[in-house]
Amino acid sequence: MASDLKSKFLHVYQTLKSELLNDPAFEFHHDSRQWIDKMLDYNVPGGKLNRGLSVVDSYQLLKGAELTDDEIFLASALGWCIEWLQAYFLVLDDIMDGSHTRRGQPCWFRLPKVGMIAANDGLILRNHVPRILKKHFRGKPYYVDLVDLFNEVEFQTASGQMIDLITTLVGEKDLSKYSLSIHRRIVQYKTAYYSFYLPVACALLMFGEDLDNHVEVKNVLVEMGTYFQVQDDYLDCFGAPEVIGKIGTDIEDFSSWLVVKALELANEEQKKVLHENYGKKDPSSVAKVKELYNTLNLQGVFEDYESTSYKKLITSIEGHPSKAVQAVLKSFLGKIYKRQK
Amino acid sequence: MASDLKSKFLHVYQTLKSELLNDPAFEFHHDSRQWIDKMLDYNVPGGKLNRGLSVVDSYQLLKGAELTDDEIFLASALGWCIEWLQAYFLVLDDIMDGSHTRRGQPCWFRLPKVGMIAANDGLILRNHVPRILKKHFRGKPYYVDLVDLFNEVEFQTASGQMIDLITTLVGEKDLSKYSLSIHRRIVQYKTAYYSFYLPVACALLMFGEDLDNHVEVKNVLVEMGTYFQVQDDYLDCFGAPEVIGKIGTDIEDFSSWLVVKALELANEEQKKVLHENYGKKDPSSVAKVKELYNTLNLQGVFEDYESTSYKKLITSIEGHPSKAVQAVLKSFLGKIYKRQK
Repeated sequence: MASDLKSKFLHVYQTLKSELLNDPAFEFHHDSRQWIDKMLDYNVPGGKLNRGLSVVDSYQLLKGAELTDDEIFLASALGWCIEWLQAYFLVLDDIMDGSHTRRGQPCWFRLPKVGMIAANDGLILRNHVPRILKKHFRGKPYYVDLVDLFNEVEFQTASGQMIDLITTLVGEKDLSKYSLSIHRRIVQYKTAYYSFYLPVACALLMFGEDLDNHVEVKNVLVEMGTYFQVQDDYLDCFGAPEVIGKIGTDIEDFSSWLVVKALELANEEQKKVLHENYGKKDPSSVAKVKELYNTLNLQGVFEDYESTSYKKLITSIEGHPSKAVQAVLKSFLGKIYKRQK
Repeated sequence: MASDLKSKFLHVYQTLKSELLNDPAFEFHHDSRQWIDKMLDYNVPGGKLNRGLSVVDSYQLLKGAELTDDEIFLASALGWCIEWLQAYFLVLDDIMDGSHTRRGQPCWFRLPKVGMIAANDGLILRNHVPRILKKHFRGKPYYVDLVDLFNEVEFQTASGQMIDLITTLVGEKDLSKYSLSIHRRIVQYKTAYYSFYLPVACALLMFGEDLDNHVEVKNVLVEMGTYFQVQDDYLDCFGAPEVIGKIGTDIEDFSSWLVVKALELANEEQKKVLHENYGKKDPSSVAKVKELYNTLNLQGVFEDYESTSYKKLITSIEGHPSKAVQAVLKSFLGKIYKRQK
């Protein structure tokens, strides 16, 4: 991604925000316009923007030629819809989890003037997505598919979040409920669809493709998203804090591939150690869990998982009839394979 | 509404629920299916169902002949989409307001096993609307308009909720910010669109009408919704508790037409009384506010408002070229004019 494209992408945010602040479907007054303005700036553009940018990226690879200004604008607008969707999830997740910080600043609901208004702001963020889509895509032949796509992916994400929440609830009493298949399902629905499939699906629709012909692309991307999340869990525990930029806390948080893998591999005695020490904050419990991870050679298990995933993904990708689609998928895979942070 | 139609309407709920519990877009497992099943039964069907039933009602008046089973099913499904939307708003509003009971039972988030999972359940309820629409209306010529309609109305409702929340916040310090025009805007966006306009708009779309030709119908229904809410505020304070079934608490709650009207009519001294006593829970403050309402003759002011609204609405309705549309609008008005509860 040329830095030129990134600056164009950021410019589109300003345009979209300004349109939303003047949406004729609602009579704004000074206070409400100002509230939304601040709320958007606080919550939407502060992340890495990978999901949003990859719509533009993917569309460019599909087209294989320079993009017109109009194409850059439209692909960026779709990218921003994903960033808006993500902002909506994060604002509400932070409330549900009682989190304190997000992207290096206090969570939105933690600001004294915001509080529980944040829940409604989350809904407003979500509602902005169809406003943006309607404004810029209503006349396009793929408009209805685009709206359906966003709805389906949002449904899947909320459903993934649901199993995460209810499993954690049940899991408090019974760690064994947290099996590898449940973990996989959580990751797939809660993260992979919107982070990996959605950007490419947007680019495919904009390129005039029918998503029904691209089930294999969806499968590959969901698989990649799952692999990405497993990496995340791995790096949280085994990554170098000076490289990943934070000290992992998954052993306290209870939602990691490592613990479900450990449970799968552990004998009865080792399971007991896990049950007694997992999910606790005191350093000696964390150390015992880490020691068990080492005994079970989870680093080696992860490396095997990583290379198996990679081979499987490459085989699937190279089986795809379109070189342009292959390029899109390989570009995604290249960004994450063997990443250290 | 024949009781036969109501029982058919209730039957459709079971069908829709069962489809959602087997939605192929998500791999349910036992716990998650059970969770959604309970969550839906707890939150969706327990209300008066007026909004949902009025889609069937309105469609019947538009058609002017007996409905086929298929039409009853489809109109009911749209009615249930509005009930689902309402459930979503209520679940999240109760969290935001810290409410205790809803429809005679504890608020969903108050159940010990639910807690903050309720926020995500609210999102799931919201996500069910496009799932229902897609399942039953994807092939219809009006599908895209239906999806746009639900999106627009949801956006307006969330925006109305936003001004309510931020005005109450500001209003804590400055009651004068809560003007009649702000109150009107809150009511219009937060309640009138989804409660009054949406059911009729659904019926019109299903009947093959283009909503762009029915701006006047929208205006009348939004006006009616505003009038309905003013009645609500009035009855909360002046209605007979044995008729309305509860003792009003609006004087403590700060969001009533009465207080903004009182502020408009009060002299400086009376305003002082309001500022000192409004929004407080102790009975002597409530009594002082009520006394002021009597001094300002708010009952008479309301009666004037009611008859003016009624005349204006009737004139608008009778100006409409279609007798069938007139019948729909008059049926709505007949249900609410001079109601005592």
